[in-house]
Amino acid sequence: MRKRARKTSPAKLYVKGKRTRAAIVSQALRIASGEGLPALTIGRLATELRMSKSGLFAHFRSKEALELATVERASDLFADNVLFFAEGDYEGLEALWNLCDRWLEHIEKAVFRGGYFFTGAFFECVRQHGPVPDRITQTVQVWFEALKNAVGQAHKHWEIRLNVNPRRTAFELNGLLLGAYWAHLMGDRGALEDARSAVLGHLQKLVTKEIPVEAFESVRAFRKYLRERHA
Amino acid sequence: MRKRARKTSPAKLYVKGKRTRAAIVSQALRIASGEGLPALTIGRLATELRMSKSGLFAHFRSKEALELATVERASDLFADNVLFFAEGDYEGLEALWNLCDRWLEHIEKAVFRGGYFFTGAFFECVRQHGPVPDRITQTVQVWFEALKNAVGQAHKHWEIRLNVNPRRTAFELNGLLLGAYWAHLMGDRGALEDARSAVLGHLQKLVTKEIPVEAFESVRAFRKYLRERHA
Repeated sequence: MRKRARKTSPAKLYVKGKRTRAAIVSQALRIASGEGLPALTIGRLATELRMSKSGLFAHFRSKEALELATVERASDLFADNVLFFAEGDYEGLEALWNLCDRWLEHIEKAVFRGGYFFTGAFFECVRQHGPVPDRITQTVQVWFEALKNAVGQAHKHWEIRLNVNPRRTAFELNGLLLGAYWAHLMGDRGALEDARSAVLGHLQKLVTKEIPVEAFESVRAFRKYLRERHA
Repeated sequence: MRKRARKTSPAKLYVKGKRTRAAIVSQALRIASGEGLPALTIGRLATELRMSKSGLFAHFRSKEALELATVERASDLFADNVLFFAEGDYEGLEALWNLCDRWLEHIEKAVFRGGYFFTGAFFECVRQHGPVPDRITQTVQVWFEALKNAVGQAHKHWEIRLNVNPRRTAFELNGLLLGAYWAHLMGDRGALEDARSAVLGHLQKLVTKEIPVEAFESVRAFRKYLRERHA
C-alpha cells in the first residue's frame, strides 16, 4: 500500500488561492485609486505585498489581467455604493435622487482613496482603446444610462414633465456633481453638501405638479417625502 | 603646435542638445496627454524616438525630471491657450468670459490629445505629494485663481455686483465647463457650444446694470459688445 502524502487538499488550496487573489486585487485597487492604473506595476505590488514577482504572476498572467481585475473590483464597489440605489424598489424620481445623493456620499465616504475611479480614469482613458480603458468607459456609460433611465421612468410615473430631456438632464446633473467634486478636492468644505441642495433645486424645476412643493424645502424634507411614499 | 581636432563647436552642440531635448518633451507630452503621466516610460519613449535609453538619460537624468519637463510644457501650453487671455488688456468681466471661452476652445482645438491635462491629471494627482503632482495641482490652482481674480476685478470695475462671491462663482463656472467636457467626451456634440451659452446665461445673472442687456442676447452679441468696448 502506497503511503499517502500529507498535503493540503485541493479544496483548501483553491480557497487559499482565491483569498490571495482577493488580497492582491485589494492592494492593486488601493494603488490605482490613489495614483491611477498606470502607476500599478507588478514589481511594486510584489514589494508591498511581500510576495515574489513569480508568485504574483501565478495569479495574474499579465499586467493587463491584473488591471482588468482591479477595474472590475472598482466597478463592483461603484455599483454597490451608487448604482444599486437606482434599482429594484427605487424608481423614477427617487432613483434619480438616489444616484446623485449616493454619488456624493461615495466621495464623502472615500470609497476610493483618490479621484481616479471613475473620474480621473474616465478623462485619462476615454481616448484610448483596449480591454482596460473600454471597461472604464463602460462603467461610466452605465452610470450615465442609469441617470437617463431614471428620468425616463420618472416620465412614466408622471413625476417629471415630458418636455424634460433625459439625456440633457443626465448631463446637467452629472456636471453638477463633477463640479462639486472638483471644488471639494480644491478645499471647498461645503461643496458636497451644497451640491445636494443644487441637485434638489434642479429636480424641482423638472417635476410635475404631482410632487408636493414642500418636498423641496430642504434635503431633509425631500428624504422624508421619499420615506413616506414607501410607507 | 598642437593640431586642432575637427569637432562640432560647443555652441552647435548646445543648440543640438536643446533641440533634441525639445523633441523628447514633445513626444512625452503626446504620450502623457493621451494616456496619463504614469504611462510615460523611458523605454517606450526611447523606442518611439528611435533613441537609446542612455541617450535619453543624457537629457533627463530621471523619470521624474522627464515628467516635470512634460508637465512644464503642458502648463505653458495651457497658459498660452487659456490663461493668457485674462492678462494685460483683458480685465474683469472680459477676462472672466475669455477664461471660459478659451478653455472650451482648447478642448475644441484638442490642444492636448486626451483628457489628461489638466482634468484627469488633477483628479489623479490631487491626493498625491511630490514635485510632479504638486506642479499639476499648482497649474489647476492658477486656473482657479484666475477665475476668482477676474470676478474681483469685475467688482472693482462695477461690472459684477458686489454680493457675488468670487470663489463660489469660480467653482460654478468651472463646474459648468467640466460637465460640458464630460458630456463632449461622452459623445454630446453640442456640449461645448451649449456650455458657452450657459456661461453667458450665468454671467448675466451676476452683472450690474452697467452691462447692457442686449450684450447677453447671444454669444455673438457678447463678443461684439466686448470688441466695441475696446474700440
